[in-house]
Amino acid sequence: MSKRQLLLLSSSNFHGHEYLQFAKDWIVDFLKKNNADKVLFIPYASAKPNSYGEYTEKVRSAMKDWNLEVTGIHESPNPVEAVKQAKAIFIGGGNTFLLLKTLYEQHLVEEIRSRVLDHGVPYIGSSAGTNVATHSIHTTNDMPIALPPTFYALQLIPFNINPHYLDPIPDSKHQGETRAERIKEFHYLNSNPVLGLREGSALLIDDDNSATLIGHTPAVVFSRENSHAEFPVDSDLRFLFSK
Amino acid sequence: MSKRQLLLLSSSNFHGHEYLQFAKDWIVDFLKKNNADKVLFIPYASAKPNSYGEYTEKVRSAMKDWNLEVTGIHESPNPVEAVKQAKAIFIGGGNTFLLLKTLYEQHLVEEIRSRVLDHGVPYIGSSAGTNVATHSIHTTNDMPIALPPTFYALQLIPFNINPHYLDPIPDSKHQGETRAERIKEFHYLNSNPVLGLREGSALLIDDDNSATLIGHTPAVVFSRENSHAEFPVDSDLRFLFSK
Ligand SMILES: [Ca+2]
Ligand SMILES: [Ca+2]
Repeated sequence: MSKRQLLLLSSSNFHGHEYLQFAKDWIVDFLKKNNADKVLFIPYASAKPNSYGEYTEKVRSAMKDWNLEVTGIHESPNPVEAVKQAKAIFIGGGNTFLLLKTLYEQHLVEEIRSRVLDHGVPYIGSSAGTNVATHSIHTTNDMPIALPPTFYALQLIPFNINPHYLDPIPDSKHQGETRAERIKEFHYLNSNPVLGLREGSALLIDDDNSATLIGHTPAVVFSRENSHAEFPVDSDLRFLFSK
Repeated sequence: MSKRQLLLLSSSNFHGHEYLQFAKDWIVDFLKKNNADKVLFIPYASAKPNSYGEYTEKVRSAMKDWNLEVTGIHESPNPVEAVKQAKAIFIGGGNTFLLLKTLYEQHLVEEIRSRVLDHGVPYIGSSAGTNVATHSIHTTNDMPIALPPTFYALQLIPFNINPHYLDPIPDSKHQGETRAERIKEFHYLNSNPVLGLREGSALLIDDDNSATLIGHTPAVVFSRENSHAEFPVDSDLRFLFSK
């Protein structure tokens, strides 16, 4: 069995589509290829109190029509054991800081890493769930509502992603930094390349064999040298692993 | 001498104005009232390597015409001593995470707090410099490019501020959270009220006597109960101290 099977979505929502629907074929094909018809959903990015149930229902309801069985990790008395048994893992969006903090509190970081990297368990991330799959959450867009013990994350890939990547708004009067300026600040202190993944697109990784940009929108790669380059859909982004 | 003299700007830049110029009268009057003609500038929010000098020059050049003498804290061999001697303190914008981390590393948090709260040294903050003046940096807009030891900050006031506050963009197709949604996430986990300070406005605090919204734009107060209320310029916001 090949290792490191990842589908990293910029977002769960894409303008004009119901929740996750724009990514239906990608998710279904990805899980089929990896022989998984059961998904362990991790709703820890949801900040709203007591919302894990409703969040999991939302995912369950979307995936039910795709013949996928969804279990929420909070339904298990032992989250580490739930990860150990998982046929596939999906971490959804919400707040990245809270998500990473909870993953550490529940002692899941090493376990998820091991399942994905050593055992080839397929991993789907969306938004915050994509941020935590990368080297670190230094390039999240979220508000820091909670403090994790470190910004270093699951490190399923050795670079960073900025999900919901946004181009500067033309003629904006706003004086806050643009997204590209924020990523430039990141690169003053950190050296990993950053993949700016616009909504509607995803990175599909099949171990070392391929890392393909899929979806509806091109992506931008920022490197520390302050160069940035646009990549159209279907681009091979394997070079990000060797930087 | 009265204690806790604060001028907290949403931003240093305001559309259509040169750096700090929109706030000239406020700054000049504020420092005059507090008998200060020398300003200690703290450029630690700047992420660009070796940029403290040029950042300080920018402030010095703006304030020179106002007959204010600016010293950069990095020009002093002993930053704690520089704060002890300061007649006024100005912390400028940049990256809030890096700023707070550096304030802790330089052992300045307690010292600045003491100067401002116990000795009445006037404090001007802008953007990140306003974030760190509040209870915590949980409501910054910045990218978390560096990890401070805690998100709790100078606590010169007992509530939070969201600088550069932005209203939702009408008809936006973007699926990332609006600013108001991010502040709502903050309130799921934290109880302090949040003042959403739009660019072009500031909060002027004269100890317990007054806390006045000044400037060109109304502000929004978010409370944990998820109510939010608009306040026009000149509003008395002292109630934020008693929540
Ligand atoms: Ca989010
Ligand atoms: Ca900033």
